[in-house]
Amino acid sequence: MHRNFKMAQVFRGTFIHSTPQTALQVLEDALLGVDSAGKIAFIGKGENVLELSQKFGFNPSEVIKLAQHEFFMPGLIDTHIHASQYSYAGTALDMPLLKWLNTYTFPVESHFKDLEFARKVYTQVVKRTLRNGTTTACYFATIHTDASLLLGQIANDFGQRALVGKVCMDRNDSVEHYRETLQESVDETHRFIKELLNKKYPLVKPVVTPRFAPSCTEALLKQLGTIAKNNNLHIQSHISENIDELELVKNLFPDSETYTDVYHKFNLLTDKTIMAHGCHLSDKELTVFRETGTSLSHYARNVLNHKVKLGLGTDVAGGYSSSILDAVRRALDASKVLTIQNPEYQTLTFEEVFRLATLGGSQVLSLDDKIGNFEVGKDFDALRVNVAARGGPIDLVQCEAPKILLEKFLNLGDDRNIVEVFVAGRKVVPCADQTVE
Amino acid sequence: MHRNFKMAQVFRGTFIHSTPQTALQVLEDALLGVDSAGKIAFIGKGENVLELSQKFGFNPSEVIKLAQHEFFMPGLIDTHIHASQYSYAGTALDMPLLKWLNTYTFPVESHFKDLEFARKVYTQVVKRTLRNGTTTACYFATIHTDASLLLGQIANDFGQRALVGKVCMDRNDSVEHYRETLQESVDETHRFIKELLNKKYPLVKPVVTPRFAPSCTEALLKQLGTIAKNNNLHIQSHISENIDELELVKNLFPDSETYTDVYHKFNLLTDKTIMAHGCHLSDKELTVFRETGTSLSHYARNVLNHKVKLGLGTDVAGGYSSSILDAVRRALDASKVLTIQNPEYQTLTFEEVFRLATLGGSQVLSLDDKIGNFEVGKDFDALRVNVAARGGPIDLVQCEAPKILLEKFLNLGDDRNIVEVFVAGRKVVPCADQTVE
Ligand SMILES: [Zn+2]
Ligand SMILES: [Zn+2]
Repeated sequence: MHRNFKMAQVFRGTFIHSTPQTALQVLEDALLGVDSAGKIAFIGKGENVLELSQKFGFNPSEVIKLAQHEFFMPGLIDTHIHASQYSYAGTALDMPLLKWLNTYTFPVESHFKDLEFARKVYTQVVKRTLRNGTTTACYFATIHTDASLLLGQIANDFGQRALVGKVCMDRNDSVEHYRETLQESVDETHRFIKELLNKKYPLVKPVVTPRFAPSCTEALLKQLGTIAKNNNLHIQSHISENIDELELVKNLFPDSETYTDVYHKFNLLTDKTIMAHGCHLSDKELTVFRETGTSLSHYARNVLNHKVKLGLGTDVAGGYSSSILDAVRRALDASKVLTIQNPEYQTLTFEEVFRLATLGGSQVLSLDDKIGNFEVGKDFDALRVNVAARGGPIDLVQCEAPKILLEKFLNLGDDRNIVEVFVAGRKVVPCADQTVE
Repeated sequence: MHRNFKMAQVFRGTFIHSTPQTALQVLEDALLGVDSAGKIAFIGKGENVLELSQKFGFNPSEVIKLAQHEFFMPGLIDTHIHASQYSYAGTALDMPLLKWLNTYTFPVESHFKDLEFARKVYTQVVKRTLRNGTTTACYFATIHTDASLLLGQIANDFGQRALVGKVCMDRNDSVEHYRETLQESVDETHRFIKELLNKKYPLVKPVVTPRFAPSCTEALLKQLGTIAKNNNLHIQSHISENIDELELVKNLFPDSETYTDVYHKFNLLTDKTIMAHGCHLSDKELTVFRETGTSLSHYARNVLNHKVKLGLGTDVAGGYSSSILDAVRRALDASKVLTIQNPEYQTLTFEEVFRLATLGGSQVLSLDDKIGNFEVGKDFDALRVNVAARGGPIDLVQCEAPKILLEKFLNLGDDRNIVEVFVAGRKVVPCADQTVE
């Protein structure tokens, strides 16, 4: 099958990734070929380069060799990011959720009716997340269909893999004009899905996106569940982030036993659903997640214990940073704080968090048949990392084992260490306009 | 008094700092003069530049004006950093304390007998922390007197303000050769203090440094308490980081009621003492801290409630990063995790953490008469921050209020946003060899 396509690129060096069986697998002096469709055609040993070159038809002199402090790892996967909130990322972080939505989020999101404003912010967020190594992002946009379509177009143009959600909300008393009627929300969701699919972008797909239960009527939730089912689409929303929100949901949906039940009742929990947060989910609710195949974007050890699919998200702008590397560190730190509180609690290892940021993310997005690690037949979504990059943040890098290089990168590295980013075999960083800068 | 010195530099723009009364004070369009001794000679209003120029004798045309997205803030203060552990920063973070010491720390520290190795690591740590905006660092070195003196020399040469501690430990069964006898430890501590003071470095001073109680005999702790008292010196050590350590201390010091008592008994808790961690200190122990004036380097809300002096430390290499900006974010994150665990807990604000990283740090080191904020008569230790620095990590900076600029910098910024660093009025970043790079 690999012979259907010409071999486009062959790399030789260290590859680090996760498998379902092992959080960290290091392939030293490996040879990896990418075909012209952007798929991994073979993975072999560097020492077998001549034999492989004959079998797969490439010229050994064209093999790209990694330098001493370099390695390839799978692209980072951001399972939850509000593209529309990037304009105020890094501010307004110490306000409770419901107040924060009314004070910052809704007023800012209402600006995305203006397509030029949307273009400016969405271009920045796609460029920046790519530069931070996010090869796949699961985006919340706003209620505006055209701006959401524009986000899809920008992701496609820059070569990022993305799920894009036009936000649905027919309940919002706080910010005027930032609300749809039930009919508008349903009609515009249909239009959004249809127009985005019609573009036939290879890497960008729509995701059905009720903002969260308190912003939606039961009628809307019901229709969105039906739309997702009829079109076999992804679904994303928020759940159980803080205590006041739980109270609100209890009041708005008195017939539902739990927050999870609200979504479950309307067929919104499927094996293509990604729910953000879930800080206060009960064991019983987590069981529903597991049984329906619903994923969580957040870090929590008890989620792992329940075998619920789990990935990392930056949650821009609720989270301060658009870099999954920061989400990695926050997960590790949070885990340590919990260990201090309760020494019985088992601290997460960096290997486990590495898996959450890559393979785990691909499972959360039900894309693990296509991406998440280095397997023949999967797309080549990868970061070329140089731990000792000149001008970068890491000093005193010796001749160290790949595992140590990865650990340094995860703990200390930043975009300066990500020297190249590939999505489906295409080099997207540095991109043309970034090299000009 | 300001007339004793010629005015060396005058800056005009936004200055942001903390005072004992308010965590965040913004001085917009301020004029700040630094005399040739590096002290703040005056702080006035930009609009009064002519009047001030006559009074303080400077030429208005030589005033340095900050750009739109720039501000000055006090230099960051790292109250706890192991300079000798910088060589493996960012690795080996998920091991329990006591195992970690024996596996990584002691073997690495024993290499600092080699002065060339020490020179290489210490040069990097001083350069890197300065570049990250750490104008003052409180360093642990190793047991080696000459290498510790070298760290003092390097800090002096690069212009960093520093307390430097030669580590004392006469109890260590795990790593051969990395231990002193009681007599060696006492004699070498005397020699270290004498030789470092003889250098008459204006900004670098010795600090008496028992590693932590389990590494020291009672006899050594007693002598170190006496040495500190007789020479009126700072003291630093570790306390109560984890549960196994508490058990060990209980076994080694059966006569002491608490971990705090071990140090208190030997006069090691003074108003010039900095203790790192203190994760498991009881209310009773924190009361001893407050009464003796002992400071803590760590973040914990209950410490603030007890009015114990508190600052931030990177704790390289126990902490992954050498940047106090990361310590700021970790403190904010940890605080949020604790709020999720217990909604009664009051989340720290970024303004409070900003104060911990600057004025709080100066109080921890009992240097708040000299540094920590912008007050006439204090040394000018400052960062010139450009939130919109070209090639930096922050996008979409609008014409925003200084408070928002600071928040973005604390949450999203890195060394690329720190365009200049001043210590005692001297520009130390970019330094000569950094601009050549
Ligand atoms: Zn969200
Ligand atoms: Zn320490």
